[in-house]
Amino acid sequence: MHAVALRRGETSPELIEKPRPEPEPGEALVRTLRVGVDGTDHEILAGHHGGFPADDDHLVLGHEAVGVVDDPNGTAFAEGDVVVPTVRRPLPDGPTEYFERGEPDMAPPDETTERGISGEHGFMSEYFTSPAENLVPVPDELADWGFLVEPISISEKAIEHARASRSAFDWRPESALVLGNGSLGLLTVAMLDSEFDRVYCLGRRDRPDPTIDVIEELGAAYVDSRVTPVDQIPDAHEPMDFIYEATGYAKHAFESVEALAPNGVAALLGVPDSWSFEIDGGKLHRELVMNNKALVGSVNSNYRHFESAVETLADMPEWLLDDLVTGVYDVSNFESAFADDETTIKTAVKFDSQ
Amino acid sequence: MHAVALRRGETSPELIEKPRPEPEPGEALVRTLRVGVDGTDHEILAGHHGGFPADDDHLVLGHEAVGVVDDPNGTAFAEGDVVVPTVRRPLPDGPTEYFERGEPDMAPPDETTERGISGEHGFMSEYFTSPAENLVPVPDELADWGFLVEPISISEKAIEHARASRSAFDWRPESALVLGNGSLGLLTVAMLDSEFDRVYCLGRRDRPDPTIDVIEELGAAYVDSRVTPVDQIPDAHEPMDFIYEATGYAKHAFESVEALAPNGVAALLGVPDSWSFEIDGGKLHRELVMNNKALVGSVNSNYRHFESAVETLADMPEWLLDDLVTGVYDVSNFESAFADDETTIKTAVKFDSQ
Repeated sequence: MHAVALRRGETSPELIEKPRPEPEPGEALVRTLRVGVDGTDHEILAGHHGGFPADDDHLVLGHEAVGVVDDPNGTAFAEGDVVVPTVRRPLPDGPTEYFERGEPDMAPPDETTERGISGEHGFMSEYFTSPAENLVPVPDELADWGFLVEPISISEKAIEHARASRSAFDWRPESALVLGNGSLGLLTVAMLDSEFDRVYCLGRRDRPDPTIDVIEELGAAYVDSRVTPVDQIPDAHEPMDFIYEATGYAKHAFESVEALAPNGVAALLGVPDSWSFEIDGGKLHRELVMNNKALVGSVNSNYRHFESAVETLADMPEWLLDDLVTGVYDVSNFESAFADDETTIKTAVKFDSQ
Repeated sequence: MHAVALRRGETSPELIEKPRPEPEPGEALVRTLRVGVDGTDHEILAGHHGGFPADDDHLVLGHEAVGVVDDPNGTAFAEGDVVVPTVRRPLPDGPTEYFERGEPDMAPPDETTERGISGEHGFMSEYFTSPAENLVPVPDELADWGFLVEPISISEKAIEHARASRSAFDWRPESALVLGNGSLGLLTVAMLDSEFDRVYCLGRRDRPDPTIDVIEELGAAYVDSRVTPVDQIPDAHEPMDFIYEATGYAKHAFESVEALAPNGVAALLGVPDSWSFEIDGGKLHRELVMNNKALVGSVNSNYRHFESAVETLADMPEWLLDDLVTGVYDVSNFESAFADDETTIKTAVKFDSQ
């Protein structure tokens, strides 16, 4: 079968041939429909993130997948069920407590693999196998968009954890700011739209720009970071009750403290490299304390968040998905899904056209 | 009546005479028993914190009080009830939503006064008045130690908010680290002792030292920050599931990220001045995200936390309170309560010896 993989030592994906996998007991065989491409994939290609399976010279890419159960193999699924796989799997020496509790997203990085990212092949191949317990059912009518369930689940978790951090008091948030106008940022703007009175999204693009169009079509306000740096947002707009950081730009994590309203929380999701810079640590520390602010880091997501994400996706308007997904390319043309220009928001590779 | 106050322009407290206050409708008149002295008082004296009542040339000090209801004045209290007052009061132009919700601790600093700290006279006088709704009943047998309810309530809130931030998953903390071996730090070590398997307390003192004795008597481990800086604690001891920062040393707030175990949380309580320094912001940001860590600022406390603090105080062993409270001085000798040397842990001024 075809698979899109990164070979050791390379920085571009290539199309390879692999045998169709055989499901083990408890696993189903899934025929892949579509697999999304995101920033993590580009970081893997650049060698900044992830790792190869120990015994292989390549990593099959892809962690945002949707497929159809081809062989239920004795699991509770039926042939034809549309499913989305979760990403984290136990290490070969067995599941740790986090997996046993159904919270692999809380496992430290060295206690988990991530399919298509670190230590295990991903889903960007004509077929993949997965334990049934890691397959999330999706309604048939969402089959075309199901590859968005994984990224949405990331935000479901981050928002849940941020809200939890404000659950010891009567939090009444009104304003939210998303840092980053990539596809994850835009999906999150759409998610926050129903929960917050006013939503802002920060980027650094000139008009006309398709991401700014999406932001404004959603009723949110675009903030150009070149005009209004994060720490000046309270003066230029308003202090933010909730901030969602998806830029990986480390200064944003710390400047968020200044952009937050009293009792606000920033959910951090970016994964930057080491980078030293000066901050007014006294002022930030004081701000955190005197105004009861919080910073909450969040990575990955678990089955429950995938289930919420399926519901969230079902509620998203068709125009948004059409505008967000700027390209779905047949596997024979997979390179186009990894190209990136100013008109690209979200792309996917599809396997179901033959 | 006698009162201990700071006059504008001065840096030392003095004994002044003031008329005994008359309770307004809804207020009780309280005869003061004891009033604790803490780091905030010293910061007020140094001019680093707090503010005078608008129309007065002085601020009566004291925010950690215990007293006896002298005149219930039609409130639900009875004469002789032992009570502890909460600290925050609405601004003269009326209570904001935070007060109306019973959460004045969540009010931004410019929407509240703090008795004995900012904008309103404190409790370090022979009598004080307070709305009955701001008086917390205390069992008679705790009258001598009731001035510890306020500082304990500060930790009740901080711990509650930190726990809330971990409530979206199955958090199973074992290790806790208190940064700071002042009286608040030591009270918190005692509080954490029953909740965590292993508790550590960081200070910078040589043995023999009374705070180290208390730490070790509580079964906790003393960590000398001159030997083991915060970011080296995981290697020297273990990563910490919970960190409680009460030093006001801004670098500790950021180094906490490195001392935390995966999924850990640091509660920040210190109030430093502006201070710029370099950090590896990329590394800290990455750590927060990849290991689901959180930083939660916390200030003040509300009625509910005072109620919890009364229960916590009742459970504290007598030896601990005896060792912690190194001096209780008659108001005629109030200066001794503000002196500070290596043998001082916690002091109070008492008004009931005449």
